[in-house]
Amino acid sequence: MTLYKAPLDDQRFALFDVLDAETVLTRLEGGEGHTRDLLDAVLEEAGKLSEQVLAPLNESGDAEGCHYDKASATVTTPKGFKEAFKAFAEGGWAGLTMPEKFGGQALPAVMGTATTELFQSGNLAWSLYPLLSEGACHAMELHGSEEQQHLYLKPIVEGRWTGTMCLTEPQAGSDLGLLKTRAEPDGQGAYRLTGTKIFISAGEHDLAENIVHLVLARLPDAPPGSRGISMFIVPKFKVRADGSLGERNRVSAGAIEHKMGLHGCSTCVMNFDGAEGYLIGQPNKGLAAMFTMMNAARLAVGVQGLALAERALQNSLNYARERLQGRALSGPRYPDKPADPLLVHPDVRRMLLTQRAIVEASRSLVLYAALQTDIEARAKDTAERQKAGELLAFLIPIAKGVVTELAQECVKEALQVYGGHGYIVENGMEQFVRDARIITLYEGTTGIQAADLLGRKILQLKGVGFRHFLAEIEAFCKTHAADESLRGFVGPLAAGIKTWGELTLQLAQRIQANPEELGAAANDYLYYSGYLTLGYFLARGAAAAQKSHVPAPLRQAKHDTAMFYFARILPRIHAHKAALEAGVATLPELA
Amino acid sequence: MTLYKAPLDDQRFALFDVLDAETVLTRLEGGEGHTRDLLDAVLEEAGKLSEQVLAPLNESGDAEGCHYDKASATVTTPKGFKEAFKAFAEGGWAGLTMPEKFGGQALPAVMGTATTELFQSGNLAWSLYPLLSEGACHAMELHGSEEQQHLYLKPIVEGRWTGTMCLTEPQAGSDLGLLKTRAEPDGQGAYRLTGTKIFISAGEHDLAENIVHLVLARLPDAPPGSRGISMFIVPKFKVRADGSLGERNRVSAGAIEHKMGLHGCSTCVMNFDGAEGYLIGQPNKGLAAMFTMMNAARLAVGVQGLALAERALQNSLNYARERLQGRALSGPRYPDKPADPLLVHPDVRRMLLTQRAIVEASRSLVLYAALQTDIEARAKDTAERQKAGELLAFLIPIAKGVVTELAQECVKEALQVYGGHGYIVENGMEQFVRDARIITLYEGTTGIQAADLLGRKILQLKGVGFRHFLAEIEAFCKTHAADESLRGFVGPLAAGIKTWGELTLQLAQRIQANPEELGAAANDYLYYSGYLTLGYFLARGAAAAQKSHVPAPLRQAKHDTAMFYFARILPRIHAHKAALEAGVATLPELA
Repeated sequence: MTLYKAPLDDQRFALFDVLDAETVLTRLEGGEGHTRDLLDAVLEEAGKLSEQVLAPLNESGDAEGCHYDKASATVTTPKGFKEAFKAFAEGGWAGLTMPEKFGGQALPAVMGTATTELFQSGNLAWSLYPLLSEGACHAMELHGSEEQQHLYLKPIVEGRWTGTMCLTEPQAGSDLGLLKTRAEPDGQGAYRLTGTKIFISAGEHDLAENIVHLVLARLPDAPPGSRGISMFIVPKFKVRADGSLGERNRVSAGAIEHKMGLHGCSTCVMNFDGAEGYLIGQPNKGLAAMFTMMNAARLAVGVQGLALAERALQNSLNYARERLQGRALSGPRYPDKPADPLLVHPDVRRMLLTQRAIVEASRSLVLYAALQTDIEARAKDTAERQKAGELLAFLIPIAKGVVTELAQECVKEALQVYGGHGYIVENGMEQFVRDARIITLYEGTTGIQAADLLGRKILQLKGVGFRHFLAEIEAFCKTHAADESLRGFVGPLAAGIKTWGELTLQLAQRIQANPEELGAAANDYLYYSGYLTLGYFLARGAAAAQKSHVPAPLRQAKHDTAMFYFARILPRIHAHKAALEAGVATLPELA
Repeated sequence: MTLYKAPLDDQRFALFDVLDAETVLTRLEGGEGHTRDLLDAVLEEAGKLSEQVLAPLNESGDAEGCHYDKASATVTTPKGFKEAFKAFAEGGWAGLTMPEKFGGQALPAVMGTATTELFQSGNLAWSLYPLLSEGACHAMELHGSEEQQHLYLKPIVEGRWTGTMCLTEPQAGSDLGLLKTRAEPDGQGAYRLTGTKIFISAGEHDLAENIVHLVLARLPDAPPGSRGISMFIVPKFKVRADGSLGERNRVSAGAIEHKMGLHGCSTCVMNFDGAEGYLIGQPNKGLAAMFTMMNAARLAVGVQGLALAERALQNSLNYARERLQGRALSGPRYPDKPADPLLVHPDVRRMLLTQRAIVEASRSLVLYAALQTDIEARAKDTAERQKAGELLAFLIPIAKGVVTELAQECVKEALQVYGGHGYIVENGMEQFVRDARIITLYEGTTGIQAADLLGRKILQLKGVGFRHFLAEIEAFCKTHAADESLRGFVGPLAAGIKTWGELTLQLAQRIQANPEELGAAANDYLYYSGYLTLGYFLARGAAAAQKSHVPAPLRQAKHDTAMFYFARILPRIHAHKAALEAGVATLPELA
């Protein structure tokens, strides 16, 4: 079985030393109680649940998978998943960040992100059930009527029910404007939904009494394309006014998908055969409503990359310590043993440090982004709220697109450290590679993230969030300009962001002349932005590690990780710069 | 089911236009008959076998896998594998490159490489059975006595038996010096072998009457480490002097591995319980004997990268043509359809061109390397033979290390083109990703290839092959210096190889001062070398496409692919240069 130990010290360092989360959070509206002591205690409990309940089910859940019974159209989840969900619900985790009026604990979003990392490291497949519920809750919190919130949101917060998001159809993936599911008024205030949705995570399962589907569909008079999409609540079991379960609704799983990984997560084809549904939010504004949850959903997928990479790193580091093979190049390091541990080989350390740098930088990035969510929602100052929202919008495609892509590299290197043993199922590393492969695809592929960053966040929104972020990095560089120990980071960072700004302007001009240039540059612009962003957070980590309370070995480790990154990973920006400057002429038409 | 069409035109272009293989081969000893007509006919037949027999079993073989029966210690291969092997044997493919005296067809090694690409694209898991046999044949051809060759080699060439290579043990992977399997003389000229081997591809199966294991083991008086290893022939069934099968030998499969992919290939734990074996070659020279086959084995694994990437490319290109999703950035290209095909998106073309460039360059590289095998074996001039051997030795770690690594990127991008549909088993793309993940591990991990390139081929052998290769590229650049249409390639190539030479010298000095620097630089040196090597072959492709008989669209395509590569892939050398110059100080010790 693979190891997993909740990386609480690393999380605390990122939260409290790098990001100063206690200061930020306690200044917010209603945040007086969000002290380090409280947050520490929450992390500790989440870590226990992940280590003791979720992590042990990760490999068994993958091996067993979900089972679909055609006759009853029901799905059985792997052994232990139901009990784990019960423990999760009883611990109050389902409503961690939800308002108290729905039975939630009203903790900051950043704590949702930090605990989600722990749960996802423990068991990514399992963690999708509550994650989808969280998305559905946010949608109902923002767009539902009071009655809808009472009937459908509260039971999810209490951990009795779960939720889904039903978007994709066979012909409508990235392009949701193509969706066809119809919603016809039933004359009594409700609607009859007919159509087929695919790739519906947690669409059917045995963890909860009821499932609340949030479904995108078209009203009869809806305009074509993405402006004619509305959102509906479609419960698996209809719900009586008193909250008790009524008859079975006409929505059911037609199949579950056979996937490369995430076998413990039931990914369903959902058939709506005149299912009863209730409009949520405004007619024809469903896509916009869905997109209000997109930041949270995409950030959570970025966290999945971090979570998988963290666990893969823990295991490959442990293997490199224990596996004896070969001798150090400068002579045996442990002459009394038959061979030296893998860790003596510089190239093995390169593979481990690559993972460590990406993991640590990614953690600071996603927690920073989550903090912006809290600031946007609850800062006392309007301007501060707005700025946080703009920063968040800018960082989301980076946190999703780049962290998930670099997570592929991390799990690949982790497996590679094992040599041939990495390919063997029982060693557990190949599961991380299989599980990770979905995260660059769902909630918007990397191409979609890249287009969002360059097309929407930079061009449409005139780079407002980008300018905040650049200013922040500039200020960091200025503050630490004279710091000898950060010299290797501040210089390249300052140079990098100068070029980043120039490239952005050049691209904007080029795209104005030919919109195809957007598609030709977006991917490399995303990576360019991502590598600088991660470098910034590692430099902040090295700076934060200088605080007097940080033990010397940790200080050294943070410095070393940043040094590794700046010397060996950040130079990739030069390759991406060349590629993004190459233009659409280098991507000729293909027959 | 995934598509596969044997890329015969691309193979012919690489062989005859880029590499001028007909001229090279017909000049060799015994090569008079190796005309283009003959070679074309061989390719055509191999293509048919792959398309019609092997390719249709690829997904079913993965789904079914191999089954191990504990009671009989036997392995059943997936449905159809046995019949496919029969067709392969009857077609004479088992002895394609083996001497006529053993029943082979004595075709050039380059034809073995070209047909192996086709078979591996069709069905990588299946193709490992004959591939391992080929390795065993080469070992017996080079090191076996005449009697051994007659008894054990000939039946494999005839396709009646298969062979294996038994190297790895639980504690001895990359470090074979640690192996423990013992071979005790039985007093009658034979030996009794005792020990456990793991990861033995094709170790047990139902495709053939007998299996000839080539086993590394220690004689009782052997010195410790890698200088005390001998090689033995251990047949599954003992063989009588007349070639008929005798009693069952005491070697058996104790289990088969559960692997990430290659499910159709039986990867066995082999138990030797006093199995009868026969020394092949000199005592204590087994490792050296095994290494004489290493070039061929590693090249074949490089070809696996090419083969998987080729098939993944064919499928993702087809999907991008057919899947309608979104609109072109500059306005609808097919306004009468509900959406434009994916191919209109520049970022999708980037993913496809990345694959195409790597596939085409890799194909030229592996065929070029294989041609050196032929020249080394059969050139009439001694100096020419030696030079070819030196070039080959230099290129092997690149052809293995870089082609297999970039194949990971290719299959990843191919899956990515499919979006979420790529994650679904039935679409077949995820199998390519799973199957591909082994090739950077077996026959020496990428780290081993990198150390071989920098440590052995550059430093120990004083870069003799490297200098031949540099001189060849320099000559190419000089020949085409004035060619306007190649300007974008010749300039960067000339600059790149100049830096390559300088970096190599600097590294040699630095490693002399501290051997740990070898391990710190090797991986990035491998990539640096690989990207330039692939660039050279794409530039040669663009130059070859100018020949008058090449149709204009093909000429344009070859130019476009090279242009894409030089603009968007080759700049990665700058990142690798920075990393390899960073030194071991940036890879600090890890606790």
